[in-house]
Amino acid sequence: MTTAAELYARHREMLDRAVTATRERTYWSAFPEGLKAYGDDGTQSAAEGAAAFERWLGKPFPLEQPGTDGEAGREHSPYGVELGVSYPHVDPDAALAAAQEALPLWRDAGPDARAGVCLEILGRINARSHEMASAVMHTSGQAYAMAFQAGGPHAQDRALEAVAYAYTEMTRHLPESVWEKPQGKRPPQRMAKRFTVVPRGVALVIGCKTFPTWNSYPGLFASLVTGNPVLVKPHPGAVLPLAITVSIAREVLAEAGFSADLVQLMAEQDGEGLAKTLALRPEVRVIDYTGSSEFGVWLERNAVQAAVFTEKAGVNSVVVDSTDDYRGMLANLAFSLSLYTGQMCTTPQNILVARNGITADGEHKDVEQLGADLAAAVDGLLGDDARATALLGAVVNEAVLDRLGSAPSYGDVLLPSREVTHPEFPEATVRTPTIVRLDAKDRDRFLQECFGPISFLITTDSTEASIELLRDSVREQGAITASVYSTDEAVLQAAEDAALDSGVALSCNLTESVYVNQSAAFSDFHATGANPAANAALTDAAYVASRFRIVQSRRPLPADAAATG
Amino acid sequence: MTTAAELYARHREMLDRAVTATRERTYWSAFPEGLKAYGDDGTQSAAEGAAAFERWLGKPFPLEQPGTDGEAGREHSPYGVELGVSYPHVDPDAALAAAQEALPLWRDAGPDARAGVCLEILGRINARSHEMASAVMHTSGQAYAMAFQAGGPHAQDRALEAVAYAYTEMTRHLPESVWEKPQGKRPPQRMAKRFTVVPRGVALVIGCKTFPTWNSYPGLFASLVTGNPVLVKPHPGAVLPLAITVSIAREVLAEAGFSADLVQLMAEQDGEGLAKTLALRPEVRVIDYTGSSEFGVWLERNAVQAAVFTEKAGVNSVVVDSTDDYRGMLANLAFSLSLYTGQMCTTPQNILVARNGITADGEHKDVEQLGADLAAAVDGLLGDDARATALLGAVVNEAVLDRLGSAPSYGDVLLPSREVTHPEFPEATVRTPTIVRLDAKDRDRFLQECFGPISFLITTDSTEASIELLRDSVREQGAITASVYSTDEAVLQAAEDAALDSGVALSCNLTESVYVNQSAAFSDFHATGANPAANAALTDAAYVASRFRIVQSRRPLPADAAATG
Repeated sequence: MTTAAELYARHREMLDRAVTATRERTYWSAFPEGLKAYGDDGTQSAAEGAAAFERWLGKPFPLEQPGTDGEAGREHSPYGVELGVSYPHVDPDAALAAAQEALPLWRDAGPDARAGVCLEILGRINARSHEMASAVMHTSGQAYAMAFQAGGPHAQDRALEAVAYAYTEMTRHLPESVWEKPQGKRPPQRMAKRFTVVPRGVALVIGCKTFPTWNSYPGLFASLVTGNPVLVKPHPGAVLPLAITVSIAREVLAEAGFSADLVQLMAEQDGEGLAKTLALRPEVRVIDYTGSSEFGVWLERNAVQAAVFTEKAGVNSVVVDSTDDYRGMLANLAFSLSLYTGQMCTTPQNILVARNGITADGEHKDVEQLGADLAAAVDGLLGDDARATALLGAVVNEAVLDRLGSAPSYGDVLLPSREVTHPEFPEATVRTPTIVRLDAKDRDRFLQECFGPISFLITTDSTEASIELLRDSVREQGAITASVYSTDEAVLQAAEDAALDSGVALSCNLTESVYVNQSAAFSDFHATGANPAANAALTDAAYVASRFRIVQSRRPLPADAAATG
Repeated sequence: MTTAAELYARHREMLDRAVTATRERTYWSAFPEGLKAYGDDGTQSAAEGAAAFERWLGKPFPLEQPGTDGEAGREHSPYGVELGVSYPHVDPDAALAAAQEALPLWRDAGPDARAGVCLEILGRINARSHEMASAVMHTSGQAYAMAFQAGGPHAQDRALEAVAYAYTEMTRHLPESVWEKPQGKRPPQRMAKRFTVVPRGVALVIGCKTFPTWNSYPGLFASLVTGNPVLVKPHPGAVLPLAITVSIAREVLAEAGFSADLVQLMAEQDGEGLAKTLALRPEVRVIDYTGSSEFGVWLERNAVQAAVFTEKAGVNSVVVDSTDDYRGMLANLAFSLSLYTGQMCTTPQNILVARNGITADGEHKDVEQLGADLAAAVDGLLGDDARATALLGAVVNEAVLDRLGSAPSYGDVLLPSREVTHPEFPEATVRTPTIVRLDAKDRDRFLQECFGPISFLITTDSTEASIELLRDSVREQGAITASVYSTDEAVLQAAEDAALDSGVALSCNLTESVYVNQSAAFSDFHATGANPAANAALTDAAYVASRFRIVQSRRPLPADAAATG
């Protein structure tokens, strides 16, 4: 057994560095994102990861959880592979009881111990990033490299970021103090005070299919490190990445002398509606959710006993005014539209451009030309099937295909979607993005999320009108990202004002290898909490501070003349 | 005109000291609580304050607010005086529009400027503490000295505490950074990033009658300093203290070049239900409320567009096991029951004692003896009418009198309430506390708030049972305070465990001049947010962090070989 204190000592340097990073917001990463950085020092190589993934397939996933009353799960890979893994199904009453039973010891261990355990969990998850990459790939449909990075080290960095924020907030007050109030000529009043971090209760994390780890880890680790036992309810189509995560967490917790039931997997059976059931339980006091706006809003309105953190749907816009790097802009946009087949919450949907065109490299381009050039850039990027599939990944569900099918009816198709054959997984459903031309008057069409690889090139009266539309769109429909291309500082400033007014993160003039889809842990905030797409940011103080409370105890101390002069 | 930057420079030292105090939680106060500390250095003397108060009476309160469409208000002092002040009534649409109009400039001013303005407001409020004392006294019914301290410097300290927390949270990230990610042999990716604090929207503060300033200031100042325009909706019976507050805030804001409409008084007409109307407006994104559980829970469930901070009803308990200072304990309890006629959210209601009695100064005392001695201690404390009224203040409303009238039907009366004649205000309704004996089986009676000077001496099977009852009571009914008397460390420890489990602040063995009713700014947290009596603590990080969001903007920087080595 390794004590939590030893784990804290082991990881303290990384924690301190992470805390500094959250403040400075310069580049920093704890977990290497390069696929080839793994294979030594106890980390899995790509081959070891692949083998480890294979070993889970076709059998029950071993988790010894209390109240197991059946099986659940069985995912079908978007790449056409039947995973055949089953997961224990657990009685909610038993899970909640076990979680509550586990709470006091975890609470009493204090912030240092909890942080030590959480960082040990993250370290072990990191060592298995290749295994996780396959698990994420074959549930989310992401291509392997993306599944590795987004599902592995980037998700781990976000988790560490949440731990760092929570640790800072838990330790912002000294745990004990002596309060001594002068009383004129009388002896001072003296009190010894103790301030204890107590968790809110049981936390529930509701995972999504597209980013089973990246979107779940911040909430999971923020809740756990602040003392809350966590029930992890995965999306039924993306259980394995979280099952592996939960099994690692349980292993570390038990080794450190805590109840493994501080982290439990709540796999659900078809049509069970387990998230809804758990969300309304009075024991559940924190909920993290990523998914549809419909269920997110339902949670916000109905799970009033809990602190609810949601990331929902949004409509991301790009304002194109002018650029001095036309090729760079087109390439950057083409990549952003294509990555993971446009199935990211950060993918641009609405490309807003003035009816009279743009200025590119000092020359005028009309909208037709821009549309044709953007379509050509996407075609060029995805011309080779092998390269295309490595960027696109696979379509996650039928609804995306249905939307692709309907897109031509929305307006002029500037770029049709095409089928791509995956060289390794011929049964995978892979599609390239489509771009449809609309006009500003088609608000009913583009002022709603059209999830998947469908983007609109929308003509407006002017760049000013485009920026107004950006502002309105974020306020009404929410957005995770916004971006602008302009060589005119006044336009950039106007876009920044619109972003501040509507509460969305803005990227300006991305023409190189930073994409609007990407947010860097420890530097970029993912979502703002200031518009309808999310009621919280990943990760800031507001995301962690209400996951715990301070409970104080005070006792009189004898007046001590010496101490008061 | 004094610029906000000048105000920040003027008050920076106090702000820094306050930030340190929130961390250290030792004794510190920015605003002297002694009544005689005022009268110099531009602060009002008692006589000046009284005269200033008198000048408000019998006429309209001058506030030039947009959308004024009538009059509202007119308070009747619990001391029998008709104040005869009327307040402008404002059209909610106009108030919200003015607030939103004022927001961007206030947002763009940044945390330093806003903190400077807020501290200048507080400084001017502090200078008028004697005037405020009369205003609080003649609306809340508090005795003058208490109205001065709780309504003046203590409230101002709590406001400063909220500003300090908010300032810390707003400045915990650097406002700008250069992000530079190594790319192996290629030039690094470089981005310039800016992180702006943006307010949630319009804030609403709903005041209460018993502590019009103390309970309103933390929310008011936390919201204002984080950039949110604030609508202040006072209790119809306690408008004047907040009208004075609002007028000072508007004066300072205008002088510093901001819109006075960043702080508006929303006085309501009879039966208007203005709090409800405003609480559901989509523009309102933060709500602070103190008052009944019924309306507090309604806000939590219905004002889902806003971050809602509530302090509601609770049932405060005292466990009496043993003491080595029996007289001290009785005197302390007697004071706590009497202060402000038991009309504090911190007043103990349920005194839990084992059926077989307690050990006091090494001797056994049975419950009858304890009850008689406690009654005698209260009688002794309040024997002299002048002294009694200075401690008790006046009854705030008929409902308290009704409860006092019903109390004898609840059980054996150990101490009857008596009428006290106020030497200065013969029309004031002043009552001493009553103590009624109950048994643990009378849960339906004592497991609900019985607001006012009514306490129960409740016999239980054992001290262990008393502690269990404390735990259950806090979990079910909530509590702002809890206390325990014991010479046995194991009992204190058990009480601390119960307090941690149920989430209530605990005071142990108070026998001197610190009372369970009192929480010291910068050291004690008022409420925890961990039990049903309040969903937030005054004041901690969770109380401030979600009042604003961070909105970022990023732009590429040219790769700079020099900077990357």
